[in-house]
Amino acid sequence: MNIISSSQNDKVKYLNKLYRSRNRRKEGVFILEGKRLIEAALAGGADFRQVFLTPAFFKSAENDNLLADLKLKAEFIYIEEDLLKETASTVNPQGILAVVNESVFKGNDFYQQAEKILLLDRIQDPGNMGTMIRTAVAAGFDGIIALKGSVDIFNQKVIRATMGGIFSIAIRQKLSQENFLAEIKSEAAEYELLAADIQAEEYHFEHQYQDNLILMIGNEANGLDQQLLESATSKIKIPLAGEIESLNAAVAASVISFEILSQQLKNKLN
Amino acid sequence: MNIISSSQNDKVKYLNKLYRSRNRRKEGVFILEGKRLIEAALAGGADFRQVFLTPAFFKSAENDNLLADLKLKAEFIYIEEDLLKETASTVNPQGILAVVNESVFKGNDFYQQAEKILLLDRIQDPGNMGTMIRTAVAAGFDGIIALKGSVDIFNQKVIRATMGGIFSIAIRQKLSQENFLAEIKSEAAEYELLAADIQAEEYHFEHQYQDNLILMIGNEANGLDQQLLESATSKIKIPLAGEIESLNAAVAASVISFEILSQQLKNKLN
Repeated sequence: MNIISSSQNDKVKYLNKLYRSRNRRKEGVFILEGKRLIEAALAGGADFRQVFLTPAFFKSAENDNLLADLKLKAEFIYIEEDLLKETASTVNPQGILAVVNESVFKGNDFYQQAEKILLLDRIQDPGNMGTMIRTAVAAGFDGIIALKGSVDIFNQKVIRATMGGIFSIAIRQKLSQENFLAEIKSEAAEYELLAADIQAEEYHFEHQYQDNLILMIGNEANGLDQQLLESATSKIKIPLAGEIESLNAAVAASVISFEILSQQLKNKLN
Repeated sequence: MNIISSSQNDKVKYLNKLYRSRNRRKEGVFILEGKRLIEAALAGGADFRQVFLTPAFFKSAENDNLLADLKLKAEFIYIEEDLLKETASTVNPQGILAVVNESVFKGNDFYQQAEKILLLDRIQDPGNMGTMIRTAVAAGFDGIIALKGSVDIFNQKVIRATMGGIFSIAIRQKLSQENFLAEIKSEAAEYELLAADIQAEEYHFEHQYQDNLILMIGNEANGLDQQLLESATSKIKIPLAGEIESLNAAVAASVISFEILSQQLKNKLN
């Protein structure tokens, strides 16, 4: 076992480079730190490149199953614990991190994969973004579109907040609003385009949702862009009973997503 | 106008002391920074003690209405901008902060005020806690119980995340689980005690909710305490359609709270 101990090693230098988002984008990869995230990525069929791990992690019997599966998919690079800690962005990377290829769908393949899509318009907060992806997966959505101006989905904080959900949903990001609207007009014309709007006449629980839909959720402070709002084929409102002007974006997305799932299940149960 | 410029001034020294949570608890107060929060607190009927403001904030015509209302309720203390910034915890307190009395209900008065209660069991994240309070208010809940071991509700981050909601709901915190269960057995026996439980047989959208209820939400990592779970009079589950083991605590609370509100509104509309 060849164990890297120098930060001047080429593989460590490459890894260090990947901690700048510009370099990750250029390479089309993202980084996962810690056992739990890597297990979730493996379960979700992620496309691994390299795994950096400490000798202690490799030798621990409780990691045998994970490592046997990973070994089939990625190059193993052994690295001293101190050097791994120095490189990683989390305080304690728990002895392992992985470089994974971005699985981002380009163009119309995406729409063939996804019936229920959550569209995120300039969402800024990584925790919010991650929670929305986690919730969308839980509610049976199968696609995420993050429009240009949203936080990078492959940001560590976003990935952690998805609790592994990011690996079981089709992702499309950095799409401009213009291109999205053009696509929707042509190939994807069979989607219901849903907007939550305080001015809507129909409550979210009154609406009959179509099977193929795109739920649009807007920026935390400013809501949905006016043009997206005008493009919506359906507008719904969530009732506000108390002295509150609006809901958190992730909360609004959750309430509507689970209303959609509940309707589907009710129809099945009846 | 007497403008304080020295950090050795007694009033500034007192304010500085209040930035330690131990001292806030002893005094029974909390601090609000910035115009928007103070407006929300005023609208919610908060009990103000002192207002620290800069001469510039006082002189700005757009603050006239707020200041006229505040003047009736609190002592005004003028302070130089640099000194205010040095003292405040937010980077930019926007020229004003206020010391406000905690409006915490003690004992059974609380139950007389609150029909729909959200109970928070050892919630750790201030953002989660604040979002849950904001959402509870929006969904028409009128009481919050935060059991011992939860983050302090009067923490600045919690207050900010409530978006003013904290001032329009009855609050009870630092209650031990034992005391809560004892109270519920006696005076508050008419409440439905609801727990979200993955093992439940009934989906959240199938359940018929009572008018008086306590929705119990558990710690982000470990869920609801076993004894609380066993005390529940109703257990419901939120369906999980995708490859996700659980929902974020604030999301689970939102989905159930708005199902309860939707049922009420449906009954009214029919």
